[in-house]
Amino acid sequence: MSLKRELLYEGKAKKIYRETSEKVFVEYKDSLTAFNAQKLGSFEGKGIVNRNITVLLYKYLEGQGVKTHFISAEEPNGIVATEVKIIPLEIVVRNILAGSTAKKFNIEEGRILERPLVEFYFKNDELGDPFISDDQAVALKVVSGPEIPQLKEIALKVNSALRVLFAKANLQLVDFKIEVGADSKGQLLLADEITPDCCRLWDVRTQEKFDKDRFRRDLGRVKESYEEVLKRLENALGVTK
Amino acid sequence: MSLKRELLYEGKAKKIYRETSEKVFVEYKDSLTAFNAQKLGSFEGKGIVNRNITVLLYKYLEGQGVKTHFISAEEPNGIVATEVKIIPLEIVVRNILAGSTAKKFNIEEGRILERPLVEFYFKNDELGDPFISDDQAVALKVVSGPEIPQLKEIALKVNSALRVLFAKANLQLVDFKIEVGADSKGQLLLADEITPDCCRLWDVRTQEKFDKDRFRRDLGRVKESYEEVLKRLENALGVTK
Repeated sequence: MSLKRELLYEGKAKKIYRETSEKVFVEYKDSLTAFNAQKLGSFEGKGIVNRNITVLLYKYLEGQGVKTHFISAEEPNGIVATEVKIIPLEIVVRNILAGSTAKKFNIEEGRILERPLVEFYFKNDELGDPFISDDQAVALKVVSGPEIPQLKEIALKVNSALRVLFAKANLQLVDFKIEVGADSKGQLLLADEITPDCCRLWDVRTQEKFDKDRFRRDLGRVKESYEEVLKRLENALGVTK
Repeated sequence: MSLKRELLYEGKAKKIYRETSEKVFVEYKDSLTAFNAQKLGSFEGKGIVNRNITVLLYKYLEGQGVKTHFISAEEPNGIVATEVKIIPLEIVVRNILAGSTAKKFNIEEGRILERPLVEFYFKNDELGDPFISDDQAVALKVVSGPEIPQLKEIALKVNSALRVLFAKANLQLVDFKIEVGADSKGQLLLADEITPDCCRLWDVRTQEKFDKDRFRRDLGRVKESYEEVLKRLENALGVTK
């Protein structure tokens, strides 16, 4: 596969190849990174499980009216997607406080927010993806003014839809990160991935973590947790294999 | 003076005493601090010069339609002000990038912004006054949703008025920090101070600094620079002594 296609970009967890003039081939890698790639890991089959979770979620979200870059699943660990120009913001939605924001304001993890909170982080590895306000993002020309409410609307729509689905899978959607890109017509599409790499998912009953915090915090059973998320989502969606 | 009044609060550069049931007496100290009080200094007469600058600016701003907590100047280094409940945000307005935001995004100091940028920092010494977005400030109940645009409006009005005045004083208003409080009727008033401690002021022609960066960065002539700012403002306003 990689022999035939031109590699456009290699990220921490994915490779992106040219497919056709307006399409790309996204290959999900087995690698795991945390803390701006200062902690490295991997497990066999991770690319496949994350690819499968993303495909399930993209199809589900499309059915809920969210436009995504997803076109088709390709065996074993790839998808074909619309080529987009990624907006250089990590868009984070929080339903429950955890991670960097809980730490920054010295609030115990687990505080439930009355309404979902949308945060932007400027995608820049050298700077460590700094937190950025709406006004800063516009002033520094990371996005245009009108794109801010559009991005928040997409983020909150994805959140509403995913919360319902994850609840059916007995998982609390604590927070997640998405990326959005513009296609050749300027239409904003959900891009990148939605996987346990960029969500926090806690078991509704036990509060057990089923996400990358198992890797970040050395909690073990990383592979099994990712596979469990896929299995629960398949059950929740009634997917037969 | 301090013998007669009850001390309500002592900050890094001011003491606040009870004056009457709805008024406070604010005493400007000679101390100088930087980097969240990790760097300490002082100079004789600093309290008086900062008091005098603040009084000039408050009176000027009131004339420009900005409501402030200022009531009267008291010799030698105090003012009487309306008692307010301070909103725990440092409200920063930037016309030219410098300081922490330039550093955070690795942008050289001196980039002129097309439009003024308003930033909020959560006032909390223990946390180091972290940068906070509008949505975070509302989600964490630091302010109410409707207060955000009100605070920005006050900040931008102060900025417009001060830019004109400082230009007459041959000083560029690079950035500044204000604080806003609510009086007993809930009316938002400009409070705290406006001095070279919380502004960046560059000479229009030479770009020489006339503000606390002289102390922060050990540039010398701190006292002379603060006194020069006062002298230039008096000239610009046609104040006779």
